[in-house]
Amino acid sequence: MKHRIGLAIHGGAGTIDPALLTTELEGLYRKGLHEAAEAGKTVLEAGGTALDAVEKAVIILEDNEMFNAGRGAVFTAQGSHELDASIMAGHDLSCGAVSGVHGIKNPVSLARKVMEHSAHVFLQGEGALAFAHDMGFSFAPEAYFYTPNRWQQLLEARAANVTALDHNQPKPIGTVGAVALDSHGNLAAATSTGGMTNKKFGRVGDTPIIGAGTYANNRTCAVSCTGHGEYFIRKVVAHAIHCRMLFAHEDLALASSTLVGELHEIGGEGGLIAIDYQGRIAMPYNSGGMYRAWWSEGLAVATAIYAK
Amino acid sequence: MKHRIGLAIHGGAGTIDPALLTTELEGLYRKGLHEAAEAGKTVLEAGGTALDAVEKAVIILEDNEMFNAGRGAVFTAQGSHELDASIMAGHDLSCGAVSGVHGIKNPVSLARKVMEHSAHVFLQGEGALAFAHDMGFSFAPEAYFYTPNRWQQLLEARAANVTALDHNQPKPIGTVGAVALDSHGNLAAATSTGGMTNKKFGRVGDTPIIGAGTYANNRTCAVSCTGHGEYFIRKVVAHAIHCRMLFAHEDLALASSTLVGELHEIGGEGGLIAIDYQGRIAMPYNSGGMYRAWWSEGLAVATAIYAK
Repeated sequence: MKHRIGLAIHGGAGTIDPALLTTELEGLYRKGLHEAAEAGKTVLEAGGTALDAVEKAVIILEDNEMFNAGRGAVFTAQGSHELDASIMAGHDLSCGAVSGVHGIKNPVSLARKVMEHSAHVFLQGEGALAFAHDMGFSFAPEAYFYTPNRWQQLLEARAANVTALDHNQPKPIGTVGAVALDSHGNLAAATSTGGMTNKKFGRVGDTPIIGAGTYANNRTCAVSCTGHGEYFIRKVVAHAIHCRMLFAHEDLALASSTLVGELHEIGGEGGLIAIDYQGRIAMPYNSGGMYRAWWSEGLAVATAIYAK
Repeated sequence: MKHRIGLAIHGGAGTIDPALLTTELEGLYRKGLHEAAEAGKTVLEAGGTALDAVEKAVIILEDNEMFNAGRGAVFTAQGSHELDASIMAGHDLSCGAVSGVHGIKNPVSLARKVMEHSAHVFLQGEGALAFAHDMGFSFAPEAYFYTPNRWQQLLEARAANVTALDHNQPKPIGTVGAVALDSHGNLAAATSTGGMTNKKFGRVGDTPIIGAGTYANNRTCAVSCTGHGEYFIRKVVAHAIHCRMLFAHEDLALASSTLVGELHEIGGEGGLIAIDYQGRIAMPYNSGGMYRAWWSEGLAVATAIYAK
């Protein structure tokens, strides 16, 4: 099957007010997105796997405090962090996920360890941390995850008594994710998040849910979602795109935009990135913007926040 | 749309050796299944909702120590319990799930509270317990969940150093679940489990994962799964049946048996119960047996473990 290797990444979707996004901030977001996409591109161009490419891209986004994952994760109502991540391989449907972990620099790598070195798919909380310890993960100190912007967001959310989806602000924002197609024709997807500012502890969104926030299947596509997770769970969004392609013979663009439209109808704000088995990319969203970057073989990496 | 109200329930699937299942044990299983199905039937016959019917049926199975959910939950490797449950309404896709909770007599009712009284879909661990406390749930003492059979299973599993799927024994067995269609034409599904004997703590199976272990949509069907959860997550089983009906126009029997066959191909043992929008019931499994009961308007409640 003829295909063109490529990838797409996202750094979250939301109501991004252009008036509040300064030129300097916009530059920092675009730089972060560009770096992550370039890292994935480098893996793919060297003949590496889609799994390695999406993990590498997500690691770079997790390490960047501009994005709501890893280092830049938002604070829960208790002033702590709860990180979720998942990863899936399209060639054999193997997958791994973690939820409610803290102190892990790169939750996406822990999800991959669950996939490759445990008998399970999904580990939560203290059990996931015990597994991380067994796997030799080093734990980052609390200070690593403390960023003044995130703390200020929590204080503001507490004062307003709201659970913020980490939207509606020109500050660090966004679940992160990546999808890729490699030279072997294999697809992969990965997603990582810090959740919602001031959220009740214990809340699990769509990010670690295989089928909802993340899905990959070589027969169709790889998908990573971002937005109001509860709605993405109800619509089983990532898997629904796969099913529309496989059973209704829709193309990626139609299947993915249909889901984003269905989310909008029920009040679910957000977006997704997806790549199909031939390398076509779709990145629909129903929110004010979505931080994203993409690359296809033979072209340069591109970034966008709004329409462009 | 003409339809016939009805329901199906399961008490787990596995390799059930007829030689080890004494007449007395078999009678106890059938009695438990019968009681749960009758309770759901009573709700439906009185014009009650499918949601109430599946919750009621699952509560009765959770309260019965013969089944691996609620009171009869198996022990984790640490000698504790971690209970998971989920519930979904087919008319508006609202849903609720909890994972890794303990001390909750009826996890299915906590999942319903999450669905109806929180802004979230899925709560895990201590956060779910804090929510239960806020909702006024009374917590059962550890002794309530201690059953000699379950403790003996843990000791045996530890001695053999295996993680048992709670199969391969004539002792208490099985995730539980229910699906129903009510007189309003609404579908619902619910699933509840105590997990795997001697499992690593923190493991999440398919039971609380909307799309994998539980799914309901008035356009097609309601599904509750039981078996080796990791495989059910990879195949997004419950949602895949919905998609095959909606997009490939398969009927419930074909869609559900196809999924159970696909699970078998990748080594995933288990089964599922499902009911469609007209009241047709399917209960395929690829294991040695599945504890189940079903009822359709105008007929009597029936139970089966093997082919009958």
